[in-house]
Amino acid sequence: MCIFCKIINGEIPSSKVYEDDKVLAILDISQATYGHTLVLPKKHYDNLLTIDDDIYQDTMLVAKKLAKAINQATSSEGVNILNNCNEAAGQTVMHFHVHIIPRKKNDDVKIEFTEHKYDLNEVKEKIIKAL
Amino acid sequence: MCIFCKIINGEIPSSKVYEDDKVLAILDISQATYGHTLVLPKKHYDNLLTIDDDIYQDTMLVAKKLAKAINQATSSEGVNILNNCNEAAGQTVMHFHVHIIPRKKNDDVKIEFTEHKYDLNEVKEKIIKAL
Repeated sequence: MCIFCKIINGEIPSSKVYEDDKVLAILDISQATYGHTLVLPKKHYDNLLTIDDDIYQDTMLVAKKLAKAINQATSSEGVNILNNCNEAAGQTVMHFHVHIIPRKKNDDVKIEFTEHKYDLNEVKEKIIKAL
Repeated sequence: MCIFCKIINGEIPSSKVYEDDKVLAILDISQATYGHTLVLPKKHYDNLLTIDDDIYQDTMLVAKKLAKAINQATSSEGVNILNNCNEAAGQTVMHFHVHIIPRKKNDDVKIEFTEHKYDLNEVKEKIIKAL
């Protein structure tokens, strides 16, 4: 059983900030910023590519409500909502979850992109074909 | 009028990969990775803290479907879904949007957190009070 399923079942303790029939939210034990929270469905899904639409939407709506509350509770200046799908994207626990990361100017969270030049028409056609 | 509203109105060209009545998806002109896409509601909302629940859910569901298609179309090994809310969180266009970033091992996207030790009970109580 995965570590999040064990937390959901109460086998491992956690800092719960929200719970309903389908969704649980806990403080990330590794706090990137003060109030860093994880939102997860109680039913196990490995990741974004395999989760059902309805429980995904329930989870994302809880993330939105929590983002607002966390932003207020921590007097933050902004917030990130982040899902890492698969190891290459930084997923470490293979149970779908969303990070809520309250932000302040000059905090030490690094989300940095390097700009690349690609043939946008080529990639656009590939995506449209895969939809 | 904001730049995304101008794109939605057709005043500024873009690489559209998806469109329905409420939601538009375009390639990010600044490609963090091959296939980097932005999903946005056609109606203007500044950010996650002000968007209505129903259009937020519509937008996030499109992001999920697109993440799957983009992952496949670009032969990626994973994907991030990211919302930056407010400037402190990295938001640059003040019209709610979600990044879809297809990922491969050893790409040059940086999403890095430093672990901090906080009083988890204290922050938990603050969040629960704000909910």
